Amino acid sequence: MALEPARVVSRLRELQQLTGDENGAQRVAWTDTWSAARAWLAGLLRDLPLEVERDEAGNDWYTLRGLSERAVLIGGHMDSVPNGGWLDGCLNVLAGAEVLRRIAGEGTPPVTVRLVDWADEEGARFGRSLFGSSAAAGSMRDQDELRLLEDRDGVGLPEAVGAFGVDLDRALEARRRLEGAAAYLELHIEQGPVLESMGLPLGAVLGTFGVERWRITWTGQAAHAGSTPMDRRRDALAGSAKLALEIRDIAARVGDGAVCTCGGVVCKPGIVTSVVETAEQLLDQRHLDAASLAELLRQAREASERFAAEENIDVAWERIWNIEPIPFDETLVGFCDEAIRDVAGVSHRLPSGPLHDAAEIARAGIPTVMMFAQSLRGLSHTKLEDTREEHIEMSVVALDRLADKTIAWVAEQ
Amino acid sequence: MALEPARVVSRLRELQQLTGDENGAQRVAWTDTWSAARAWLAGLLRDLPLEVERDEAGNDWYTLRGLSERAVLIGGHMDSVPNGGWLDGCLNVLAGAEVLRRIAGEGTPPVTVRLVDWADEEGARFGRSLFGSSAAAGSMRDQDELRLLEDRDGVGLPEAVGAFGVDLDRALEARRRLEGAAAYLELHIEQGPVLESMGLPLGAVLGTFGVERWRITWTGQAAHAGSTPMDRRRDALAGSAKLALEIRDIAARVGDGAVCTCGGVVCKPGIVTSVVETAEQLLDQRHLDAASLAELLRQAREASERFAAEENIDVAWERIWNIEPIPFDETLVGFCDEAIRDVAGVSHRLPSGPLHDAAEIARAGIPTVMMFAQSLRGLSHTKLEDTREEHIEMSVVALDRLADKTIAWVAEQ
Repeated sequence: MALEPARVVSRLRELQQLTGDENGAQRVAWTDTWSAARAWLAGLLRDLPLEVERDEAGNDWYTLRGLSERAVLIGGHMDSVPNGGWLDGCLNVLAGAEVLRRIAGEGTPPVTVRLVDWADEEGARFGRSLFGSSAAAGSMRDQDELRLLEDRDGVGLPEAVGAFGVDLDRALEARRRLEGAAAYLELHIEQGPVLESMGLPLGAVLGTFGVERWRITWTGQAAHAGSTPMDRRRDALAGSAKLALEIRDIAARVGDGAVCTCGGVVCKPGIVTSVVETAEQLLDQRHLDAASLAELLRQAREASERFAAEENIDVAWERIWNIEPIPFDETLVGFCDEAIRDVAGVSHRLPSGPLHDAAEIARAGIPTVMMFAQSLRGLSHTKLEDTREEHIEMSVVALDRLADKTIAWVAEQ
Repeated sequence: MALEPARVVSRLRELQQLTGDENGAQRVAWTDTWSAARAWLAGLLRDLPLEVERDEAGNDWYTLRGLSERAVLIGGHMDSVPNGGWLDGCLNVLAGAEVLRRIAGEGTPPVTVRLVDWADEEGARFGRSLFGSSAAAGSMRDQDELRLLEDRDGVGLPEAVGAFGVDLDRALEARRRLEGAAAYLELHIEQGPVLESMGLPLGAVLGTFGVERWRITWTGQAAHAGSTPMDRRRDALAGSAKLALEIRDIAARVGDGAVCTCGGVVCKPGIVTSVVETAEQLLDQRHLDAASLAELLRQAREASERFAAEENIDVAWERIWNIEPIPFDETLVGFCDEAIRDVAGVSHRLPSGPLHDAAEIARAGIPTVMMFAQSLRGLSHTKLEDTREEHIEMSVVALDRLADKTIAWVAEQ
């Protein structure tokens, strides 16, 4: 059976009909709508010679046994945010299902191939994303916190997942599902503007960014705008303005895709007749390389100290959140690039800003790569999320090629 | 009778006891406490050979007839803001009263000397400052708006001023009180940090600043902090940051005491994970010279257009308020300088950021000057407002010398 990329598009439309409404997709994990979507997926694959299992963390596994126990994994997630888009998560699963169908149609593959539908990637109901993949990867270390999470109706997470047969105490037993996993592939929409702005349908993802997120408080002195000469001022806003501009130079100096963002400044007293006394500034820095991320932060802190001295004001840094970068496998990124070039003529390597299940699997030491399909206007997590149908079809073909190259590579190991 | 500067200090303390509480001065215009303060002032002057009148705008005039009808005016205001300081307004009146006592003690002066206690300088109850002086100067042109003003208890301004014998329709008749006025002198605390920072007790005021006050809205595009490369961003905050820094260079270039202030920036969406889409920035520019003020504004607007182009964002300017500069009389500023040097050894010329009754009188074409006494920590409109007693006494002596020089000058005209 030949690959039928157009079938993926029609199934995505069918899923949208089945589990979405006028506000978008409603496949929030641990709800009946999500359950219906997963049952529908299982129905699509019923005619294939697959072993079907739900693991201890609620992940659904569709296994096509090969000549070897060593396995190539293709993963995605059927769950969505509330009022979500028609592609985020389910594109990966349905494209993977189509690839699995093509491979199964050719007989027993040289290695085992498994499609996994991760449970609760979005964390929309309880605020904890990557539930199923973090359990399988063994990085779920916050069971005690998870136990206390409640949704906005006061339902606890243990109760909600229990209704789907998941026992929080046993969720980490899902780890054994990764035994024998030799490679992990994930197709996803980009959820950003890069590929569209470059006019490219597809890209090979280098890894997920490490993030440093800080709150920076500048403290000067309030003073009357009319009666305070310029050289007598201690203007907190001046420090934050200098840093808001400097982080762009820092990003350019460190380079390699570095991004630095000042998302806002809150000024006090914030009135037209007073010099700003305190300016509270938000900073977000991201890089794919841990040393470079540390360098972004070091340069920003050093610059802030310099600006504080220049302006005769104080500066204090408070970390909001951070995570290390998770680079993907170089060989698989190379295969992904080749597969994209085969299909689209040209490829582009780019980092992922958002986290994905793939990051958990990569952290577990399994060679991993993601492929991005172009997002229109960079929109996601909204019903306005969209990708051209021809780009969806190209992504299915490219994923299929990537799977072939990866299977051959694993078979040779 | 010789001048007794220490008496001014003790009377200021007495007034504070009489009309203040633990939160500060409470002489809000058109209240019983204000009325009590004015009656107390009248009592202090009862033994002098003065004509005492309340004009159509509620201003109290104490006139010492001289050999000529031409008059030197010394003005201040007994009213305060709620929870105000012990000096703002009443220092001027009580110092003037002491000067008047000294002159009266020497017999009939060559020209008429008048102390005026302006009604409602602060505008604390109805939000309209300089009530009495703008009526006397003829610049009160907003009777229709004044008629609609209410205090926070819903009492209308016409009713409140009517209780003090003021008929809004006739307030402008106060203008005739300025007939014959040849000079206007006003002593005030600086309400800013300049004199303290220079270690000087007194300064000669060059005039009141003209002000340009604007709201500047920068519009870029919200974009994900993780998935949007630096060169694809349209960051509204970058425009406002550049302008916040540039206005300082503009102030330095235009010079002559120019001040430019960015009092705040409000960012939307204002979250750590998004590039700023809109940044709403407050700008206040002040100068003593109208052409220089216009140049401050011109350069800021030009710079903003340049920054908008550089950042590929939009910028829009909306005027909040403006007023032209009101320069004081050069001859009187010279006398003020001389009087200060006589008393303090050294003088300094500085502009006034806040407006004062003196500005209204200067606008009416009467030669005017103000003298500033040092404010501690630049604080005013708070019970923390303070000036060293020795500086208060020096200011009374210097005002007395200034009055003498001015009387001689007017007598020669």
